[in-house]
Amino acid sequence: MTDPSTNMRLKLPITCFILQIILIILFGVLVQYDEDTDAKKHHHGNHSEAKSDIENDFYYRYPSFQDVHVMIFVGFGFLMTFLQRYGFSSVGFNFLIAAFSLQWATLMQGFFHGLHEGKIHIGVESMINADFCTGSVLISFGAVLGKTSPVQLLFMAVFEVTLFAVNEFILLSLLGTRDAGGSMTIHTFGAYFGLMVTRILYRPNLDKSKHKNCSVYHSDLFAMIGTLYLWMFWPSFNSAVTEHGDPQHRTAMNTYYSLAACTLSTYAMSSLTAHDGKLDMVHIQNAALAGGVAAGTAGEMMLTPVGSMIVGFLAGIISVLGFKYLTPILESKLKIQDTCGIHNLHGMPGVLGAIVGAVTASLASREVYGEGLEKVFPDVASKERTASYQGGVQAISLAVTLGIALIGGLLVGFILKLPIFGAPRDNDCFEDSLYWEVPGEEESHENQMTDVKTEESDKLNS
Amino acid sequence: MTDPSTNMRLKLPITCFILQIILIILFGVLVQYDEDTDAKKHHHGNHSEAKSDIENDFYYRYPSFQDVHVMIFVGFGFLMTFLQRYGFSSVGFNFLIAAFSLQWATLMQGFFHGLHEGKIHIGVESMINADFCTGSVLISFGAVLGKTSPVQLLFMAVFEVTLFAVNEFILLSLLGTRDAGGSMTIHTFGAYFGLMVTRILYRPNLDKSKHKNCSVYHSDLFAMIGTLYLWMFWPSFNSAVTEHGDPQHRTAMNTYYSLAACTLSTYAMSSLTAHDGKLDMVHIQNAALAGGVAAGTAGEMMLTPVGSMIVGFLAGIISVLGFKYLTPILESKLKIQDTCGIHNLHGMPGVLGAIVGAVTASLASREVYGEGLEKVFPDVASKERTASYQGGVQAISLAVTLGIALIGGLLVGFILKLPIFGAPRDNDCFEDSLYWEVPGEEESHENQMTDVKTEESDKLNS
Amino acid sequence: MTDPSTNMRLKLPITCFILQIILIILFGVLVQYDEDTDAKKHHHGNHSEAKSDIENDFYYRYPSFQDVHVMIFVGFGFLMTFLQRYGFSSVGFNFLIAAFSLQWATLMQGFFHGLHEGKIHIGVESMINADFCTGSVLISFGAVLGKTSPVQLLFMAVFEVTLFAVNEFILLSLLGTRDAGGSMTIHTFGAYFGLMVTRILYRPNLDKSKHKNCSVYHSDLFAMIGTLYLWMFWPSFNSAVTEHGDPQHRTAMNTYYSLAACTLSTYAMSSLTAHDGKLDMVHIQNAALAGGVAAGTAGEMMLTPVGSMIVGFLAGIISVLGFKYLTPILESKLKIQDTCGIHNLHGMPGVLGAIVGAVTASLASREVYGEGLEKVFPDVASKERTASYQGGVQAISLAVTLGIALIGGLLVGFILKLPIFGAPRDNDCFEDSLYWEVPGEEESHENQMTDVKTEESDKLNS
Repeated sequence: MTDPSTNMRLKLPITCFILQIILIILFGVLVQYDEDTDAKKHHHGNHSEAKSDIENDFYYRYPSFQDVHVMIFVGFGFLMTFLQRYGFSSVGFNFLIAAFSLQWATLMQGFFHGLHEGKIHIGVESMINADFCTGSVLISFGAVLGKTSPVQLLFMAVFEVTLFAVNEFILLSLLGTRDAGGSMTIHTFGAYFGLMVTRILYRPNLDKSKHKNCSVYHSDLFAMIGTLYLWMFWPSFNSAVTEHGDPQHRTAMNTYYSLAACTLSTYAMSSLTAHDGKLDMVHIQNAALAGGVAAGTAGEMMLTPVGSMIVGFLAGIISVLGFKYLTPILESKLKIQDTCGIHNLHGMPGVLGAIVGAVTASLASREVYGEGLEKVFPDVASKERTASYQGGVQAISLAVTLGIALIGGLLVGFILKLPIFGAPRDNDCFEDSLYWEVPGEEESHENQMTDVKTEESDKLNS
Repeated sequence: MTDPSTNMRLKLPITCFILQIILIILFGVLVQYDEDTDAKKHHHGNHSEAKSDIENDFYYRYPSFQDVHVMIFVGFGFLMTFLQRYGFSSVGFNFLIAAFSLQWATLMQGFFHGLHEGKIHIGVESMINADFCTGSVLISFGAVLGKTSPVQLLFMAVFEVTLFAVNEFILLSLLGTRDAGGSMTIHTFGAYFGLMVTRILYRPNLDKSKHKNCSVYHSDLFAMIGTLYLWMFWPSFNSAVTEHGDPQHRTAMNTYYSLAACTLSTYAMSSLTAHDGKLDMVHIQNAALAGGVAAGTAGEMMLTPVGSMIVGFLAGIISVLGFKYLTPILESKLKIQDTCGIHNLHGMPGVLGAIVGAVTASLASREVYGEGLEKVFPDVASKERTASYQGGVQAISLAVTLGIALIGGLLVGFILKLPIFGAPRDNDCFEDSLYWEVPGEEESHENQMTDVKTEESDKLNS
Repeated sequence: MTDPSTNMRLKLPITCFILQIILIILFGVLVQYDEDTDAKKHHHGNHSEAKSDIENDFYYRYPSFQDVHVMIFVGFGFLMTFLQRYGFSSVGFNFLIAAFSLQWATLMQGFFHGLHEGKIHIGVESMINADFCTGSVLISFGAVLGKTSPVQLLFMAVFEVTLFAVNEFILLSLLGTRDAGGSMTIHTFGAYFGLMVTRILYRPNLDKSKHKNCSVYHSDLFAMIGTLYLWMFWPSFNSAVTEHGDPQHRTAMNTYYSLAACTLSTYAMSSLTAHDGKLDMVHIQNAALAGGVAAGTAGEMMLTPVGSMIVGFLAGIISVLGFKYLTPILESKLKIQDTCGIHNLHGMPGVLGAIVGAVTASLASREVYGEGLEKVFPDVASKERTASYQGGVQAISLAVTLGIALIGGLLVGFILKLPIFGAPRDNDCFEDSLYWEVPGEEESHENQMTDVKTEESDKLNS
C-alpha cells in the first residue's frame, strides 16, 4: 500500500531533526530575553523610574497574541479540513509547518529587525510577529493543499519565511511603510508567493484525484470552526502589534465592522451567483473573512467605522466573484491550481487593503489625528515626509511585495519540483492515507445496538 | 429540486444589500469613534491629566469582549448544530444574523443610550453591548430554528434589535435597573419574544419533518463545542460591562460557581428523570448553562459564592424539569414549538435571575458594600433611593421586559407570517438542502482502501 | 438493554446531589470574597494608598484563567473524544467531574493554603488553582477512560483533589518548592495516581471491548480540537499563577518555544518509528504536548529560550518512544491499562520537567536574575537557602509527589473497586450507550435527496 517515493520514514524525520537542531544551535548563539521578559533587565534602574508590572508589554499584548495563536493553529488548520479525506493532513501539516515557521521566523525577523550587541531580543511582540510570518506560510499552504508532501512544505517554509522577513524589512524598516495587520506583508505576500509555487508545481493530470477534491457534510462543519475563529479573532490579529492605547482599540473596532459588513455582502453574492439561490459553503467559509484582510493596512488609521464597513462590503463582493468566476479561469488559462482559493481570500483582498491603506495614509493630517499622529505616522508627525508621500510609499510597497512574492515563489517552486521530496502522485492527491495511519470505518450504530443486545443475551445465558 | 417560493436568489441578496447599504449610510451620518478610540480625542488635555495607555478601556474589556464574541458566533452557532441535517443553517444563519444584528444594534443602542452632539460614540463597550443585543436575537432564533428562511430571520432581527434597545433603554436609563449580565434584557427578553414568534408561526403539520428534528452522534458532539464555549466564557459575559475593578472580578467569580453547581444538578436531574438512568445530551447541552443565565442580574452584586451556587443549583433543576415536562405541554397545549427549548435555558432561568437580582438588590447596604456601593448601586449610594426601592424597580423591570417581549413577539410574528419571506414548507423543515448546496455522502473508507489498492496495481502494471 | 448494576438512575443523582449540597454548606460556612473581589474590602484605606482598578489581580490573571479554563473543558474533554463510541462520555464526564472538582478544590486548597480568621478567601488566583487541581483529576481520568462509571469518577475526584491539596501543601508551603506550571503537582501527581488506580482496576478480559478501543476518522479530528487548544494555551497554563510582570511574560515564552520544538521532534519520531513512515494520530494528539508538561517547573526560571527548546525537543522524543514501546509493556507486564497513554504525555514528561526544574533552580544566581531573584526564588534571594539547596528541595519534591501519588492511587483504586459504583462490564467498556441516550444512525444523504424528490413529486401531485 505504500509507494517508496512517498514513504516519509527517512525523509521526514531527517528533515525535522536537522531543522530543529539548527534552530537550537542558532537560538543558543543568538537569542536572548528582552527587557520585559528577563528577570534582571526588568528591574534595572531605581524604583521610581521602573515600569510598574502592569505596564509590562505582556499585559498589553498577550490576550491578542493568544487570539492570533488560535487563528494560526485552529483557524488556518480547521479551515482547510473541508476536504473529505484530507483532514488529518490539513490540520496536522498546518501544525507541523507552523511549529517550525514560528521558530525560524523568530530568527529571521530578529536578524532583520535589528540586533542588540549581536543578539536577538525576544518577547511577546516578537512572538506575535513570528505567528504573523507563520500565517503567511499557511496562506501559501492553502494553494498547494493536497498536492505536497510534508517535507516539501517544510522546505517551502524555510524559504518563504526568509523572503517574508526580507520583504517585511524593506517595507517596515527601509520604506517606513505602515502595515500593522499585514494586508501586504502577510496576505498579499503569502497569496502571490503560494500562487506562483502552485503554478510551477502545475499538475496536468490532477483530475485523477478530482473526486477527492471536495467536501462532505461533516468536513464542511469542521471547516466552519476554522472560519469562525479566524473571523472572531481578526480584530485581535490586525491590532496585535499596533501602538498601545487608542491605535490598538481603533484597529480592533475597524476590523470588527469591516468583517460584519463583509459577511452580509458575502451571503448576498453567494446566493445571487447561484442559479438556484442556494448558499455555497466555500463562499461562507472564505469570502466572509476578506473584510479582515482588507482592513489589515488601514485598520490602525482613522479609517472611520463607515470607511471600514465600505471596505469590508467591497471585499466580500470581490472575493465571491473571484471564487465563482476567476478561480476556474486561473486554473484553465493560467494553470494555477489554487486548492483553497487563496487568491480570493488573501490575494485580491490583500491588494484592496494595500490600496485602501495608501489612500487613507495620503489623507492623514494633524487635524484629524491630533497628537495621535505620532503613533500612526511618526514620519508625517515629525514632518520628515508629507501624508501624500506616505501614501506613495504605501503604494510602492505593494509593488515591492508583489515582485518579491512572485519571483520568490518562482524560485522556490522550482526547488520544490525536484523529485526528492516525496510529493504525491496525481492520483494520490487530497488523500490522508498516503502520509497518515488512517483508522477504519466507524461501525454503524445499528451494529452497536446488536452488540449490546448480544451482550445482554450472553449475560442472560451465563 | 428547488421550490420557487423558497428560492432565495433574489430575496436574500436584495435584503442583505439593502440592509447593509442602510447601515453604511446611517453609520456615515451618525457614528464616530469615542475618546478611547479616536487618535485625536485620546490625547487631549495636558499630559498629567491624560490617562495612561494601560487605562484605555480597551485593556479592561477587550479580553471579555473576545470571549463574548466567541459565545455569539461559536457558542450559539454550534450549540444549534445538534440537528442532523441542519448544521449548515444553524451555524451559517447564526453567522449571518449576528453579523447584521451587531451593526444594527450599534445604531439602536447608540441612539437610545444618548447622542453626543448628534453623534453615536463607539468603542469596546459599545461593541460588547452590540454583541449582547445580538445574543438576544440568537436566543429567539433557537425557538424558530429549522422553520424559517434566512430572510425571515433578518427581518426578525431588524425588529427584535429595535425592541431590545427600547426595553434596555427603559430598564437601564429610565428605571435605573441593574442588569449587567442581562438576565432580563437579554435572556428573558430574547426567550419570550422568540416563544411568541414561534407561537404565531405555529405549524400544525410540523410532524411531517419530525424525523429530521433530532440529532445524530456527531451532530451532538458538534453541539457540545457550542455548549462548552458558552459555559466557559459565561463569566466573561456577565462581567463584560460591569464597572472596572472588583465588580468585574466578583461577577466573573459568582458566575463561575453558579455554573459549576448548575452542572452537577443538571447531571443529577437528567439521570433521575430518565426511566433507565441514562443521561440525555439535550439536558447536558442546555440545562448546564442555566446557571450562567440565572446569575446575569445578581452576579455583580454581593451575592456571595454560596449564594451563586444555590442559584445555579436551582437553575439546573428547573431547566431539566422544563425540558422533560414543560416543553411537551407547551407544544401540545399552547402550540409553542420551541426547537431548542429556549424556554428552559433562557426563559425560566432568566426569570429566576431577575427575581434573585431583585431580592439581592433589596438587601444591599453600605455595611456590606462599603464604598463599593457606588459602583453597583449608584442611586442607593447617593441616597436617591433605598435598597428596597431598588429591589422593587428590579421586579417591575421583569414585568416590563415580559410585556415588551410578548407584545413585540406577537407583532413581529404576524409580520413574519406574510408569505413573502420564503419560509420552508412543513415537510422541508430542519433541512439544509433547501437553502444550501449540500455535498454528497462521504465515500466509505473501504472504498478508499480499494482506491489505493487499485492505484498500487495500476503502478505495478505500468 | 440496561444492566441493573450499571443503571445510574439512583446512584448518579444521589451522588451529585449529596456532593453539591455538601459543597454548598461548606462554602456557606467557610468561603468569602478576597480583597480584590469584595465590594467593601477593595475600597478600604485612603485613596492614595488604594490600588487603582487596573492593578486589580483580575486584569493580570483573568485572560490566563480563561485560557486554562478552555484547556480543562475543551482541551481535556475533546482530546479524549478520539474513541469511536465514547465521545459523549469523554466530553460529558470530563465536564461533570471538572465542574465538581473545581468546587471541591477551592475548599481543599483554601484550607491548606491558609485560612483568614477561619475563612477561605477566593479570587481569580484561587479559581486558576482550582482549575489546575481539576486538571490533575482529568489526567487520571485519561488512564481509566472507558472503564469507569461516572459515580466512580466522582468518588475518584473526591479523594484525588484532597490528596492533590495535601501534596501541593507539602511542596509549596512546607518545602518552598517552585512549581508554577505544575510539572510535579499537576502532571506527575495526576499521572502516577491515575496509573496506580488503573493498575488496581486491572481488567484481564478487557480485550472483549478491544474493537471499540480505537478511533474513527472524524473522532480523530474532534480529538485534534482538544490537542490544539491544549497546545496553544499551554503558555497561559504555565504562566497563570507566576508572579506579575517578567516572570509571567518569560514563562509564557519559554513554554511557547518548548512546545514548538516538541512538535518537530514528535513528527520526526512518529514517522521514524512507523514501518512505513506514516504519521500516527495518537502521537500527534499527545506527544506534541509533552513540551508544555516538561516546561511546567522551570518555565518561570531563567531557562533561556534555547534551554526551553532543548527540553521540549527531548520531551517529544521520550513521549513518542513511550507510546510506541513502553505502553504495550506496561500493559502486558505490569497490567497497567492506560487508555490515553497518560504515562507518555504527563508521567515521563512531568518527571523530566521536575528534573529540569531542579537543575535550573540549583544554577540560580543573583548575577543572572538580578533583583528578579526575589520573584522566582524568594528564599534564595533572602539568603535563607542556597541555590543548590533549592535544587535539592526540588528533587525531593519529585520523590514526595511520586510517593503520595502512588500510595494514594493504591488506596483509592481499592475503594473504587467496590462493586457498588456501577462500573461497566468488560464487554461494555468504551461504549457511550451504557450511560447515555445515544441517537440513531444518520440517514444517508442519498435518502435525503430521495426525500426531497419525493416531496417535490408530492407537491406536483397535489
